[in-house]
Amino acid sequence: MAGGGGAVGRLKGRLRDLDALGGCAGALGWDELVMLPGGAAAARGRQKAALAAAVHERATHPELGALIGAAEEELGGAGGATAAAADAALAFDRATVRDARRAFDRATRVPEELVKRQAELGSRGYHCWAEAREKGDFDLFAPVLEELLELRREVARHVAGPEADAYNTQIDLYERGMTHARLQEIFSGIKEGLVPLLEDVKAQMAAGRGPAPHPALSSGGFPLAAQEAACREIATAMGFDWERGRLDVSVHPFTGGSHPSDVRITTRYSEDTLLDGIMGLVHETGHALYEQGRNPEQDGLPVSEALSMGIHESQSLLWERMVAQRRSFWTWAEGILHEHLPGTRDAGAEDFYRHVNRVNPGNLIRVDADELSYPLHVLVRFEIERGLFDGSIRVRDLPRVWNAKYAEYLGVEPPSDKVGVLQDVHWSDGSFGYFPSYTLGAMYACQFWEQAMEELGGAELEAEVAAGDFGRLKGWLNEKVHRLGSLHPSADELCEAVTGSKLDPAVFVRYLERKYRALLEG
Amino acid sequence: MAGGGGAVGRLKGRLRDLDALGGCAGALGWDELVMLPGGAAAARGRQKAALAAAVHERATHPELGALIGAAEEELGGAGGATAAAADAALAFDRATVRDARRAFDRATRVPEELVKRQAELGSRGYHCWAEAREKGDFDLFAPVLEELLELRREVARHVAGPEADAYNTQIDLYERGMTHARLQEIFSGIKEGLVPLLEDVKAQMAAGRGPAPHPALSSGGFPLAAQEAACREIATAMGFDWERGRLDVSVHPFTGGSHPSDVRITTRYSEDTLLDGIMGLVHETGHALYEQGRNPEQDGLPVSEALSMGIHESQSLLWERMVAQRRSFWTWAEGILHEHLPGTRDAGAEDFYRHVNRVNPGNLIRVDADELSYPLHVLVRFEIERGLFDGSIRVRDLPRVWNAKYAEYLGVEPPSDKVGVLQDVHWSDGSFGYFPSYTLGAMYACQFWEQAMEELGGAELEAEVAAGDFGRLKGWLNEKVHRLGSLHPSADELCEAVTGSKLDPAVFVRYLERKYRALLEG
Repeated sequence: MAGGGGAVGRLKGRLRDLDALGGCAGALGWDELVMLPGGAAAARGRQKAALAAAVHERATHPELGALIGAAEEELGGAGGATAAAADAALAFDRATVRDARRAFDRATRVPEELVKRQAELGSRGYHCWAEAREKGDFDLFAPVLEELLELRREVARHVAGPEADAYNTQIDLYERGMTHARLQEIFSGIKEGLVPLLEDVKAQMAAGRGPAPHPALSSGGFPLAAQEAACREIATAMGFDWERGRLDVSVHPFTGGSHPSDVRITTRYSEDTLLDGIMGLVHETGHALYEQGRNPEQDGLPVSEALSMGIHESQSLLWERMVAQRRSFWTWAEGILHEHLPGTRDAGAEDFYRHVNRVNPGNLIRVDADELSYPLHVLVRFEIERGLFDGSIRVRDLPRVWNAKYAEYLGVEPPSDKVGVLQDVHWSDGSFGYFPSYTLGAMYACQFWEQAMEELGGAELEAEVAAGDFGRLKGWLNEKVHRLGSLHPSADELCEAVTGSKLDPAVFVRYLERKYRALLEG
Repeated sequence: MAGGGGAVGRLKGRLRDLDALGGCAGALGWDELVMLPGGAAAARGRQKAALAAAVHERATHPELGALIGAAEEELGGAGGATAAAADAALAFDRATVRDARRAFDRATRVPEELVKRQAELGSRGYHCWAEAREKGDFDLFAPVLEELLELRREVARHVAGPEADAYNTQIDLYERGMTHARLQEIFSGIKEGLVPLLEDVKAQMAAGRGPAPHPALSSGGFPLAAQEAACREIATAMGFDWERGRLDVSVHPFTGGSHPSDVRITTRYSEDTLLDGIMGLVHETGHALYEQGRNPEQDGLPVSEALSMGIHESQSLLWERMVAQRRSFWTWAEGILHEHLPGTRDAGAEDFYRHVNRVNPGNLIRVDADELSYPLHVLVRFEIERGLFDGSIRVRDLPRVWNAKYAEYLGVEPPSDKVGVLQDVHWSDGSFGYFPSYTLGAMYACQFWEQAMEELGGAELEAEVAAGDFGRLKGWLNEKVHRLGSLHPSADELCEAVTGSKLDPAVFVRYLERKYRALLEG
């Protein structure tokens, strides 16, 4: 009944056309960041706008709405979409219809005028924020931040009804099915575990213990071509399929492309630092393996896409932190670096391991944060966003609140708003609710990894990592995570399907406790 | 009256949106040939089809048709579009409306069913042709060629009415305003002048005279990176704007991109041959200078595009043949090659000059033809196409007719259809009428060049070329050709505006006579 001829089949055809047009936008976006001549920025802007208009027209077309309704009817209502459906194909079809409905409603419920105001305010917000940050003057940004909050509340009323919880509507944009109540639960566990752990680590580091940078890995003079060759070798070992992707250079590393058969990663190399480029490559390759591993039977359908930002991030962070920040990884990878970059031969596997896990407790900047501190940077932002939406924090108090939370959780106080409340771009266009995904990703990664150890055998997996043999791990991720796409209605449900329990902050805290206490001993 | 508020203004806005969407297709097309991973071909095909559907929808939208009608009315009918219009801006507006009408009628007059049949037959035709060529068996291609001819006749009846001259309709696709009667006039001049000249050159070459390859330029072992560095230097001297373009490598050299601010050329380098890559680069840079030189005031409007294939080709060939196959060019360029490729130092300017002008009279293949023989390869095809459309040549007789014409005009007889009538891809998807543009381009190039010599001073221009100073030449082409776009209704009219007379085959024949007789003496 869900075959090619019925409403579901026709809907899928239409969604695939829309996906193909979205693929064009993906190709153009990559091109803009990697290939576009400087003088073509304005023309590319117009091209992207024209394409976005064509996509929007199709995404909001009444015929699409009618087809979704017919497909819902054909499936007897889309409510029962669970992985437990007897027939896997039917379960995917239900999820497809559910996601089509969700996207269509989101796209059609917000009036055009409001969409336009959002785009304008996002652009104005960005410029105000950039100027405020440049001058270190929060007051320049405060009024437009107020407007952005108000506009997002208005959008939420259109999307989720007059009684909508606007922060939940925001969070749902990035983490479908997540709420701030559940986030509160999760981040409480993080706070309780990590704040004292970080204090402890700092105290011990002040006493001269703990992981530190290795001179052979920090001395500079690392030829770019050699770094790239090492990166290509590592990506190949991880299972990156070069027939279905590319590696290039861009200012900020990212994963883009136009389709699972056209997955494009970038990294950046600096002669001065070595491991930033390589860890960036591992991170993006983790994203890329997700994209290349999407379910081919659901090709072109939204259900083949990652369930949430946090789940996508779990795949990059699993490879970056669980694998490449692991001791056994360097047993293998030191050889690659020694071969391509003979200057690193003074550093052995243990040196690499300690170097990539160094902690910098005085750091104020989220994007420079180490694995241990990062969740606390996110915690500050989550608590502030929640406060802004429930009215318990006022915009004008933000710098004070920010600094107090940094002092409390991270033990550092920003000397200026430039390196404090103004450091991130996210709020400047109203992307409230995005920050938690970073840390959710790290937590899913940890929980998935422990499950993989369990199912694949801890000792065997460790031996495979130490040999640069990642085939079973990649296969497990393909099967357990990538192929499922957004079949499940929430990441908690996917997490439960993969690991037997919903996201559990205790798993993550325990992992960090063990790892960093051992590093301090070693 | 033709400002932003009126129908003309609104039409221009709509055309610019359509152009921006076309720019997306341009970016995707370049990407496919230069960047796309092998495994992504199928996905890219679907993406291009989805984008083409969005473009087609807009290009045939009834609102666009109504707007064109209103704009025609606003301008008092579009019939009077000539460069002689008192007001230049108005002249461009008239040409814009004329071109919009032309494109809209072409797009809407052919029924969807026929468009689809055309695409299918084009695809089938390509595969039949490829197989026929592979096996050297024309009979495998003949039936589909019959079908292609019939389909094109049917299309012509839709486009130009039941009494349409189908070959003229085809020619008009590539050379607007051109007819086969006028082509007959032009090619008669070519035939009369070149057939005896080529015979003469062949006889003298058989006696050991004439230009020949130089050992230092044919010995192989030319490093690719050095060739690329030389190419970049030459393109820079020609005036290629790197802020508004790129140079990459592809299997077949081409000029693509998404906008005049994003013009992308490619060439290919081989360690074995040197000047193919460099002459290819000069050729594509000639195309690129046209694209980068399009009228910024008419940005995004069809009137800013090249008037015809032949005119675009005139710009590549002016640089390739009039400039880079000229003696004075090598006075300058030998230094670049000697610097980057020290192995060429045994060859002086005169050696380079004679090397790039070598004639290969036994050659059977159009794409390998030298400057002197090329027009006769095109002549054969033009006469055959005309015969196919007027019924005087039957498809089944093509191999015989082809071979007889090659014997008569070029003095060579193909040993098989593979290197005879099956050598070109053009007819396989029904692109009849395309071939003449190649030689028209060479002729316009010659006539434009002579006019440039006249206006800029022959001796001065020669001295500038010998110094690698191409600024005045490029400026002259920008002003006289590029900025005019398709303001004029036909290439003959543009040619008359630039040079004072319509295309004159005698100019081209005289140029070849003088040059090659001198090469035989030298």
